[in-house]
Amino acid sequence: MSPESNKLLLSVDLAGTFLFAVEGALIALPKNLDLLGVLVLAFSTALVGGIIRDVLIGASPPASLRDWRYATTAFAGGAIVFFLHPYIRAIPGAVILTLDAAALALFAVAGTEKALLYKMHPFIAVLLGAVTAVGGGTVRDVLLAQIPNVLRSDIYATAALAGALVMVAATRLKMRPALAAVSGGSVCFLLRIISVWQRWNLPRAFTG
Amino acid sequence: MSPESNKLLLSVDLAGTFLFAVEGALIALPKNLDLLGVLVLAFSTALVGGIIRDVLIGASPPASLRDWRYATTAFAGGAIVFFLHPYIRAIPGAVILTLDAAALALFAVAGTEKALLYKMHPFIAVLLGAVTAVGGGTVRDVLLAQIPNVLRSDIYATAALAGALVMVAATRLKMRPALAAVSGGSVCFLLRIISVWQRWNLPRAFTG
Amino acid sequence: MSPESNKLLLSVDLAGTFLFAVEGALIALPKNLDLLGVLVLAFSTALVGGIIRDVLIGASPPASLRDWRYATTAFAGGAIVFFLHPYIRAIPGAVILTLDAAALALFAVAGTEKALLYKMHPFIAVLLGAVTAVGGGTVRDVLLAQIPNVLRSDIYATAALAGALVMVAATRLKMRPALAAVSGGSVCFLLRIISVWQRWNLPRAFTG
Repeated sequence: MSPESNKLLLSVDLAGTFLFAVEGALIALPKNLDLLGVLVLAFSTALVGGIIRDVLIGASPPASLRDWRYATTAFAGGAIVFFLHPYIRAIPGAVILTLDAAALALFAVAGTEKALLYKMHPFIAVLLGAVTAVGGGTVRDVLLAQIPNVLRSDIYATAALAGALVMVAATRLKMRPALAAVSGGSVCFLLRIISVWQRWNLPRAFTG
Repeated sequence: MSPESNKLLLSVDLAGTFLFAVEGALIALPKNLDLLGVLVLAFSTALVGGIIRDVLIGASPPASLRDWRYATTAFAGGAIVFFLHPYIRAIPGAVILTLDAAALALFAVAGTEKALLYKMHPFIAVLLGAVTAVGGGTVRDVLLAQIPNVLRSDIYATAALAGALVMVAATRLKMRPALAAVSGGSVCFLLRIISVWQRWNLPRAFTG
Repeated sequence: MSPESNKLLLSVDLAGTFLFAVEGALIALPKNLDLLGVLVLAFSTALVGGIIRDVLIGASPPASLRDWRYATTAFAGGAIVFFLHPYIRAIPGAVILTLDAAALALFAVAGTEKALLYKMHPFIAVLLGAVTAVGGGTVRDVLLAQIPNVLRSDIYATAALAGALVMVAATRLKMRPALAAVSGGSVCFLLRIISVWQRWNLPRAFTG
């Protein structure tokens, strides 16, 4: 890849990290944590999904611990929420939702791509793409001693799985990598947005 | 090993995976999760113990992520519970208990064997055998935001530890591997069954 | 290093392990766990921080699983609390606090040193030093289904971070390793002691 496109990819990745960190900190804030706690939860939300993926595929140390900019970006996101939360809260929900869906798509696609690069079976690569996207938020909820939201409601992990699946299928169909990534990401993004708009949910065992 | 005995071992391993997945899903079901949540908890219960063992001994990627049949089997167990739980619940408790004790024994023995294969100290191999057997259920309970059941009651992890210990001792006494595995597995299985039947428990600090 | 100083380092490390195990077991005791549960939480508190660090830096198997004395020491600490807790509780709080601050300093410094040895970026090494020191207690609290105390109050992880930071700075200034370790450890220890004495806390987002 050219240095320019490498730089672009890193910027996009850091933007997703920042956004997830901000969201994690917003969820942590009402829980009566101190500054350190908010920073830890911002870090977890943004980076632990990718760290779990890297540990599982044997890419150690994990990418986000090789480059100091990831942790710095995550802490910056947490600190901004901590000190400026009244302003952050003023951002309209639709903006947050859209940015979050974009970051979800980005993480799902990047996670799937890395798993494929490490020769994981396509089906496992799909699972690892979803883990990359939602693993951090899951660990954040565990640290807050609550059942992870992703297990209970919404088309969220499902959107990540769908995007990862499309990307794997496109790759197997010999589509160009960039195109496969864009296809998978678009499916994840659109499915997430439409599902919120249409209030779609997965079935539950007991609906009573 | 002959291809036939390899196939037999894989079948037994997948049967244990299926059973643990079904049990995990049954525990998850009343917690108001959606389909995805039930599948995730089935997967965790069945496979995360072995994944933790493999990460700790440096066998990456973990065995259950190298072969797509493990994840597929775990998800199948979860899906069957989700859609057919009235029928699953009709299975007598004694049957479930017996099958669960068999799967516990299988996982404890297989985990210990793999740890020994990776040259872990015998004492550590015993611990890793128990982690293989009960680690998945522990993570499931953490995801359900409750204190893992295994820390509180019953001779469950203790049976896994006892079976692993017998297996390590038998191996050190130069017993043939298959015989050492059967000895360890039998001790785990019987101790579990007898302890439920006799209502044995470990001591608690406060019994009042 | 001479065999004597190696032996001294191991003894100090095992002493820290024992102390953290005792503290973990004391916190676990009122939670109605059985003997196994108390031993597991003692082990987690004492050793899981270092295990997480080793998994993240790619040092597998983790140091505390290579040498059986670590697990044995942790279980001994747990068992002593389980059977002798009335006597352990009689130890004055100031003694526990001082010993705990010493163990915190030791683990933070040792964790930072190992991360630097594995060529981690200095900033990441500081984070991993803190993970070594407080990761075990965090996992213990997760297993007890409560929000980790370290995220909520006190200058505890902060003291570990400060000590790790001083150590990294001293190392970069080409200070002799032993001196860098002593400097970092002293800062962590003193900051922890003074913060308890002066009732310092990190800021919270909502103080009302």
